[in-house]
Order: sequence, then structure tokens, then C-alpha cells
Amino acid sequence: MIQKERLLKDFEAMATFGGSRSGINRIAFSDADWAGRQYIIERMIDAGLDVEIDGFGNVIGYKRGTNPNLPIVMIGSHTDSVPNGGNYDGVVGVLSAIEVVRSMIDDDVTHDHTIAVVSFMCEESSRFGAATLGSKAMRGKLTVHDLHRLVDTQGISLYDALKDRHLQPDAIESMEYKIPVKAFIEMHIEQGKVLEHEQKQIGIVSGIAGPERFYVTIRGHADHSGATPMNLRHDALCGASKIILGIEEVTSMQEEPPVVGTVGIAEVMPSAMNVIPGSVKLGVDIRSISKVARDSVVFLIKELIDVIAEKRGLSYTIEPISKDSPVSMASSMIKEIERAVTSLQLDYMIMPSGAGHDAMHWAEIAPTGMLFIPCRDGISHNSAEFAAMDDIVAGAEVLENVIRNISLVGNALD
Amino acid sequence: MIQKERLLKDFEAMATFGGSRSGINRIAFSDADWAGRQYIIERMIDAGLDVEIDGFGNVIGYKRGTNPNLPIVMIGSHTDSVPNGGNYDGVVGVLSAIEVVRSMIDDDVTHDHTIAVVSFMCEESSRFGAATLGSKAMRGKLTVHDLHRLVDTQGISLYDALKDRHLQPDAIESMEYKIPVKAFIEMHIEQGKVLEHEQKQIGIVSGIAGPERFYVTIRGHADHSGATPMNLRHDALCGASKIILGIEEVTSMQEEPPVVGTVGIAEVMPSAMNVIPGSVKLGVDIRSISKVARDSVVFLIKELIDVIAEKRGLSYTIEPISKDSPVSMASSMIKEIERAVTSLQLDYMIMPSGAGHDAMHWAEIAPTGMLFIPCRDGISHNSAEFAAMDDIVAGAEVLENVIRNISLVGNALD
Repeated sequence: MIQKERLLKDFEAMATFGGSRSGINRIAFSDADWAGRQYIIERMIDAGLDVEIDGFGNVIGYKRGTNPNLPIVMIGSHTDSVPNGGNYDGVVGVLSAIEVVRSMIDDDVTHDHTIAVVSFMCEESSRFGAATLGSKAMRGKLTVHDLHRLVDTQGISLYDALKDRHLQPDAIESMEYKIPVKAFIEMHIEQGKVLEHEQKQIGIVSGIAGPERFYVTIRGHADHSGATPMNLRHDALCGASKIILGIEEVTSMQEEPPVVGTVGIAEVMPSAMNVIPGSVKLGVDIRSISKVARDSVVFLIKELIDVIAEKRGLSYTIEPISKDSPVSMASSMIKEIERAVTSLQLDYMIMPSGAGHDAMHWAEIAPTGMLFIPCRDGISHNSAEFAAMDDIVAGAEVLENVIRNISLVGNALD
Repeated sequence: MIQKERLLKDFEAMATFGGSRSGINRIAFSDADWAGRQYIIERMIDAGLDVEIDGFGNVIGYKRGTNPNLPIVMIGSHTDSVPNGGNYDGVVGVLSAIEVVRSMIDDDVTHDHTIAVVSFMCEESSRFGAATLGSKAMRGKLTVHDLHRLVDTQGISLYDALKDRHLQPDAIESMEYKIPVKAFIEMHIEQGKVLEHEQKQIGIVSGIAGPERFYVTIRGHADHSGATPMNLRHDALCGASKIILGIEEVTSMQEEPPVVGTVGIAEVMPSAMNVIPGSVKLGVDIRSISKVARDSVVFLIKELIDVIAEKRGLSYTIEPISKDSPVSMASSMIKEIERAVTSLQLDYMIMPSGAGHDAMHWAEIAPTGMLFIPCRDGISHNSAEFAAMDDIVAGAEVLENVIRNISLVGNALD
């Protein structure tokens, strides 16, 4: 049985690593991150898992099944944080996975497939500007060149960060995880307010949205704010405002499948009280679990930008940042999680994940599923991030129910 | 006669003080500003003017009239600049005024009223955050407390800046200029593109707009850009965009008398690609030469902000910055300048000044007028600022025509 008190102690302990009044600071490969990782290793060892570390620092704890020749069942998430982040984000996934195996050991559960609990390193993009790097390393997607290219704001490369932790950056290209995987499952906080709004305890992820990101720089004339009549202006910020509202409208209109569009960045130049904005740089992020829906929205947005600029005598440039493909969760895993949730009589909904997760990288090679638990007010990546213990326990119980079932030969996934 | 070559030499000389490839840097009371001021003093002395300096550093050069008991005719502007500014802004006013008296001396013109050419210190607000400080000092509007309160980004107070230049900050409260003034006139570049657009060589200023400035901070929820559906958002930047476009619309609708409204500053928090903007701080500047028109536009804008915030579930605060009264130019001076312009057969228009000028402070005590000359593309406060010598000469000729007339007893102003 999942033990709430035991799990709570782990959350309290994790909060001491990088915790302060301004939030959790377990930036990837920092001392606090490494102390938190050590705590995870010790809890795995205490639970009787065989712990292995790969060359990127990923921690893999095995609970051996009765048949060592069968592919493994993997559960994983991460414990690093953004600056001034929270103690729940990926932590709920790692600590719940450990609690699941502790509960199975308490109950003397036997299983055919070996279960692997993984704590992935460097999931957050805050330090090196790229996310889910531990998963990418395990999936053989990183090169030595990448490790040199990815550099933090202090000028430290990922290569050097790995060296400093006595890991093996030079072996990155032979680091791909080779053991066959039967299924992958990740539990995470929702990072949104849909579950809370819909009053559901569990979200079963249908797919992970792929973001397309680009900068739009709009250029007008930085004239004097007092000396330029309204009809002689080419105000870049007024043009940008039209574009921002256009993005909101176009994405809101695309309902099934839904698309979300956000202008999170708007840098105004020269930014003075008495100068009409001469240029504005917008950072645009468009996501959907449907590539077709996302692409059609991006097409409309680009048309719109062109029309607005033309009409207002502005010029613009569009600079692509990234374009990731959406990833679908396996329907077999969605059904399996749905079965577990239903048997535990929890309220649930099937929903997209707008945020990226480690699970994205495993969907290519194994049936992959994710489950979300609610977080208060939808807040994440913030010191106010909070998930209720009862919701964490409910999620862990679903995770255990799924793992107990799929780690046996002859279940729905076979 | 106004001598173009002599005037050009002065512009070339002034450009050496604080000049660089990134523009003119004659920040108030800096070494470059002081070197430029010394050049002005020397040209005044060369022209035979009696030069006096007041406790704020303002430079006043007198060309004595035949009747020393009559009130004086004052011509003035400034030679300090914004960071990376231009060499024309107020400089055209000071150098042209000196050229006017040189021309009158060349021609042995006699006049009843004493003429005073003034180079006002610290007209630009760049250093101490407040404009036209030299004029304010001469009009007795500054206190010792003000001099301590006004501090630059280096932490140097205006009080200490004056001390460093061996001036008399402690005497500021008894510094009011006491000599009666018959009329005040200032020549300046337009700092806008109206004259260029209308193809006029001279602008006769009808009034100087008073800006009302305030910050509006709009607050929503800084949710995850991927995990928050469009219908659950409270995006502060979308609300801000509606407000920016509303300000543009409301001010454009107010045509006679015109109002201009500018959002020159928009600071987005937290400003991340994957976070919906949680708050946006807008810097708003609304101007008109009609206080009634401006006040009614500001009223409409505040109504609009309230409606937009309410509709989108956002909150807001409005923080006043300043509220200056518009200043009308004297109709007698407008007519006098119009007479001069007409006799010189120049194309002109009567127009408001959106920007503030030293002239504002003299309108209370004497008939005050201003004339504008065009500047290329309306650019000012920028290294690209440029005014053609032919336009400067035309302006100086108007100035001379006016001064020759009003410095005699028995003209239109009497």
C-alpha cells in the first residue's frame, strides 16, 4: 500500500535541497541538485533496488522481475528545478515511483518484468536552454558537439558540467540505453489549471504538444511622442498589439483539436516615455498535440502579421527558434491507465499535455503513457507551486495499479 | 545680413564638443556641455555682448538698446543634449540668436530695447529626470530642496553638480530673473515630421502641449503557456494590447484640437517564452495644447482600461507621473512672426508644439513666441538628427526680422 506519511517525509527531505523562501533552486548539476539526487539514490538503495548510473548521471534503480530476459517496465521523471521553482513538478513522479516499488516490496508482490525507476538529469531548460537532456542522452540523441555547444549563462558548457560531476561526456555517443523497454510511464503535476477547473483528480495524457516558436520583430519609426500627429505615426507597439490580439483570436478559434498560442516576450525599443516605439520583438509559442492544427494556425498568424504590417506601414522579420513534433501517447497505455483509475474510483479526464516531458523521448520505442495530478491554481515553475498530498497519493496509487498489472506477463499490453 | 558660412562654422565647432560616431553627448553639466557653453560665451563676447552668468550657470549676453530703462527682448534656447543626441535640437536657437545680433551689429542697426541672448542650462530631462531646469531657475521655480531631490543615475544630485561647476545652488531661491521682459522668442527644430510632410519651411507655434503621464500596470496570471487552454487564461499582455490600441483609437478620434497619445514603454513580466505574461507595465503619455481635450481623452482612456480589465478578469493600478498644463503662445507674437515670415516670402504653417521647451516658462510673464524649422524625417534626440543650413538660415532671418521690429519702440507689441 502507498504510505502517505513515508512519501510526505521524502517531499520534506527534498525541499531541504536548494530550498529557500524564494523557492526551490535545484538547477541541473548544481550542488543542490546533486544533493537531491544523492537522496534519491539512497532511497532507491534503502528500497532494495539495484542502482546504476549512466555517463550523463541519470539514476536507474532496478527491481528485478522473475524473468530477467523480458523487456523492462520503466517509470521515470526528474528532480531538477527551474530557478525559484517548486518541489513538486517532476519530483512527484520520482518519489511516487520509489514509493510504488516500496509498496510492492511491503506486499511481497512478484512480477515477471524487471521494473526500472529512473531519475532523469537536467529535464529543465533553464540552465542550458534545452529540455529533457537526460532522456535525450539515454535515447542516444546527444553528441559530444552538442555538449560543447550547450553553454549556461556563466559560460560553462554541458560538457564541463558533466566533467565536474566526474561523468563521461566523451562517451555520450555510445550511451544509448540498450535494454528493451516494454512500457514507459511518467507521473507529473499538470502545470495548468484544467484539472482543478474540471474538478478531476487524475489527468490521463493523450499526447504531448510540440511547440513551434519564433520571434517576430516589428519595425516602425521611433518619432517624438509629442511632436508626431497620430496620422503620421508608424508605431511598432500598436502594430505588435494588433498581432498579439490576432494570435489570441486565431488560436482560440481552433477548437478541435485545440491549439494554444502565447506571446510571452515583448521587448520595446527604445522604451522611453517620449519616443514612439520604433521596434518591438515578440516571442511567440504555438502548441498543439495535432501538427496539422498547429501548422494551419501558424500559417494564419503569418498571413495576419503580413496584413497588419502592410496596413500600418511597418516592416517585420520572422526568426524561427524551434519546431518540435507533437508526440501521441500509446492508446494501449491510455486504456491501461483508464482501467486503473476506474478501478480506484477516481474522477479523471483525458487531456493533452501542453508542456514537454521526459516521456516524449520514450514514445518512439515503447508504449508510453503519462498521468497528471492537479496543482493548486495551475501554478508551476514558481515558489507557490503546490500539490496536495492526497492528490499525490491518488496518483501514486494509479501508478502502482498500472505497474503491478503491466509487470506481469499476459496483460493488456502483451 | 545672416551669414550662412559664419553660422555653419559655429555648428561645426559645436559638433566637436561631445561629438562621436554614436551622436552628440553634451549631457547637462558634463565636461562636453561645459566646453560647448564656453564656446557660446566666447562667441557672445566676440559679438560684443555683455555676458552675465547666473547662479545656475545660465549664460545671458546683452546687446544694449538706446534706452536702458525699457524692458528687454529675450531670445533663448539650449545647447545641452540627450545621450547620443544631435547637434541641432536647441543649438539652432542659440547659434541663430547670436548670428542675429552679429548681423544687426554688421548692419549698425540701432534699437531702443536691450536684446538678451540666453543659453539655458539643463533643458533636457535625460540627466535629472526633469526638463527646462535652467528656465525654471531663472523663473524662481526651483528650491534648494529640489536641487537635492533631483539625482542622476550615478547618485549625483543637481545640487552637487552645480557645486562642482562652482555655481551657487544655495542661492537658487533668490535667483529669479528680475529685469522686465518685453517679449520672449525661441527658435528650435520641429522634432516632428509635420513641416516636412506639409512642405513648409517655418512653423509658427500656436501653443506648447502639456503632457499627462501615468503608468498602468495590468495584472493577470503567469500560467504555463503550453498547459493553459485559451479559455482559462488571464493574459496581461493581451489585455495590455487592447489598452494600447484603445489609446491609439481614442486619441485619433479627437481631432480639433488634436491630442496625441503614446505608449512608449511596455515591460512584460516574467518575459519567458513558456509563461503567459503575468503583468505588463505601460508608460502612457497624452498631450494636447488644449487641457480640456486632453483631460477628456484621459478620462475616456481610464474608462476603457477599466472595461477591458473587467472583461478579461485582470486587475490594474494607475500610477500618475506628471500632469503639466499646456501653454499658449501670445497671439501678438504669432502675428508678429507671421508678418516677418510673410515679408520674407517663406511657406509657413501655424502648428502646436508637442514637445516642451524653455519658452513655456516665459509665457506667464511676457508675450512669448516660438518658431520651428524642419528636421530631416522628423528625427531628433538621435545621432541621425539633421537640419539643413538653408532652413536654419531661413529661421535665423525670421528671428532677425522679428527682433529688429520688436526691439524698437512703437511696434505691434506695444
